[in-house]
Amino acid sequence: MVYRPRLLTPGPVELHPKALEALSGPQLHHRTDQARAIFNRARSGLKAAFKTQGETLILTGSGTAAMDALVLNLFAPGQRVLVPVSGNFSERWAKIATEAGLEVVRRDLEWGKSVREEHLEGLGHFDGVLLTHSESSTGALNDVRALAQAFKAQYPHALVLVDAITSLFISAFELENWGIDAAACGSQKGIMCPPGLAFAALSPRALEGLKPRSFYLNLGAELKAQAGGESAWTPAINLVAAVAAVLDELMPDLSAHQELKALQTEILYRAGHELGLKAVPEVRSAATTCFWLPEGVKYAQVKDVFAAKGAVIIGGQGQLKGKIFRLSLMGYSDLYDAYAVAQMMREVLRFD
Amino acid sequence: MVYRPRLLTPGPVELHPKALEALSGPQLHHRTDQARAIFNRARSGLKAAFKTQGETLILTGSGTAAMDALVLNLFAPGQRVLVPVSGNFSERWAKIATEAGLEVVRRDLEWGKSVREEHLEGLGHFDGVLLTHSESSTGALNDVRALAQAFKAQYPHALVLVDAITSLFISAFELENWGIDAAACGSQKGIMCPPGLAFAALSPRALEGLKPRSFYLNLGAELKAQAGGESAWTPAINLVAAVAAVLDELMPDLSAHQELKALQTEILYRAGHELGLKAVPEVRSAATTCFWLPEGVKYAQVKDVFAAKGAVIIGGQGQLKGKIFRLSLMGYSDLYDAYAVAQMMREVLRFD
Repeated sequence: MVYRPRLLTPGPVELHPKALEALSGPQLHHRTDQARAIFNRARSGLKAAFKTQGETLILTGSGTAAMDALVLNLFAPGQRVLVPVSGNFSERWAKIATEAGLEVVRRDLEWGKSVREEHLEGLGHFDGVLLTHSESSTGALNDVRALAQAFKAQYPHALVLVDAITSLFISAFELENWGIDAAACGSQKGIMCPPGLAFAALSPRALEGLKPRSFYLNLGAELKAQAGGESAWTPAINLVAAVAAVLDELMPDLSAHQELKALQTEILYRAGHELGLKAVPEVRSAATTCFWLPEGVKYAQVKDVFAAKGAVIIGGQGQLKGKIFRLSLMGYSDLYDAYAVAQMMREVLRFD
Repeated sequence: MVYRPRLLTPGPVELHPKALEALSGPQLHHRTDQARAIFNRARSGLKAAFKTQGETLILTGSGTAAMDALVLNLFAPGQRVLVPVSGNFSERWAKIATEAGLEVVRRDLEWGKSVREEHLEGLGHFDGVLLTHSESSTGALNDVRALAQAFKAQYPHALVLVDAITSLFISAFELENWGIDAAACGSQKGIMCPPGLAFAALSPRALEGLKPRSFYLNLGAELKAQAGGESAWTPAINLVAAVAAVLDELMPDLSAHQELKALQTEILYRAGHELGLKAVPEVRSAATTCFWLPEGVKYAQVKDVFAAKGAVIIGGQGQLKGKIFRLSLMGYSDLYDAYAVAQMMREVLRFD
């Protein structure tokens, strides 16, 4: 019996067929009208996805490049930022801010917990807060809307930055309406394209306070170049074409897509519950499920049995390494794929 | 009459069919044995191409990201570097070093000229020199071997960094043997893949003196991760697969490929000469031809007539904007393609 390959990881994910189609075309040159039209189309679609009246910039790099670019270009060294840490990606915010020379005040929570308004209170003056919408290392969703508003109520002049890398296109997201000033995303997540592009969204307020620095990740240089449909440095234009193509398909029916992702994740959690598996997150993100490994079961065993059935899954990062496993249907997949994976879970986790 | 599209720009270039084949496959996850094997294969091939006993790192970004990473991670702020500037890309070295907080001593030459040993002399103490092998903005080749040796004779403890973005795979290149400590390249040039990856080569001596900084472009973090076939941040793994596939084809017969590129460029320069066109570079790089526009002819005219024949060409950058045009066969093409383009040049430049 031969199984078809299934990528069940929270990024990279199964590609949208429109992405593959775009990638099979001849090489574009980025300084042509054709490429500029594609670049502009991708930026417009992303602007709609982030729900911003500001700007969305496309950077050639991992999602981490957008996080780094936002911190470097929105804060000056010495400024003080709050970072609630409850997983690998919020930990990354803290490291980025430290490397950028900011004064970082960490608020450490148990991994898997969601950040609550009270975690942002009574800690002195801040120039900003760095939040993680979907903490895909634990499967937790943070209510960044409530957090942004609570933070802004105390620090009206501070900036709210959000890692929306695994939430954009998957969960509701609104930049200015939710009180967010800037957000980051990547191409290999909800937009179902290969990795290699990072997206940085800036509210009008963030644009006003921009403090450009860094050579490669200079958002001032990018704003100037991208206004004309180009980028400061040679872009991964093939991936931009893939993103533009998928945005055209996805954006007109985004809420139906988000409902599908929520339902798929619920189906997997339900299957896990029936198998006696405990969920890691307190509040569940639709981007990925995250389960504690059953007592006495090693991650490698679980991974290998999934692999024998054609599926690639992922384990834990950082302090959760060897303790959890994660399954995601963030990529191109429908409701029936969720039932298929639920059945696979039953077979694997009962060790049938 | 319908023309087939021809990308005659010095990057991006016509893709190698093995690159397109690799890109049409299902999405890989970078933390799998399959992806690690591909990553290791790409790194080994690149190491052979750079001719180094040190390390070659693959970064997700434009070629500029590798240049920025090398400067950030090999020099501390305040160190003094020499930058001979004779085109847009050597100018970029100067800007990168300035942004990185180095003391930059420029040696400005007329654009199109090649740097000579005497340009590196008698300017005081230096911690390094930033050289450009193929200055594709002017079509000039710099003899980085002679320059590295002349510089090292005066400053044995300094580092020699080379932008090999349009020279690697096109011209002979040897890292340590030529006295070079570090070099940068990108995926959309001589390796005939789409843009989106940058390569940073480090000699054993450069590795010893590494001073890791930057979050996204931290070469210390990359060295650690890439030793295990992964990367610090999610890589553009599809492009890594394309690079690995093309390296497998290209490396066994690299010198024949380099002879072809030299011959193609010669055929185009010869056609230009017959048309009365003046070449811009003093010493010609095989990566791209570069011609002065004939008296009274505007770049847009030339570009549009090439475009009507299906070909994308490129003009000048910086101070050469509107004064020159460039044609490159760096991408996937053979000798007969050079004759085809020579014929196109005759038709376009006579305005037939």
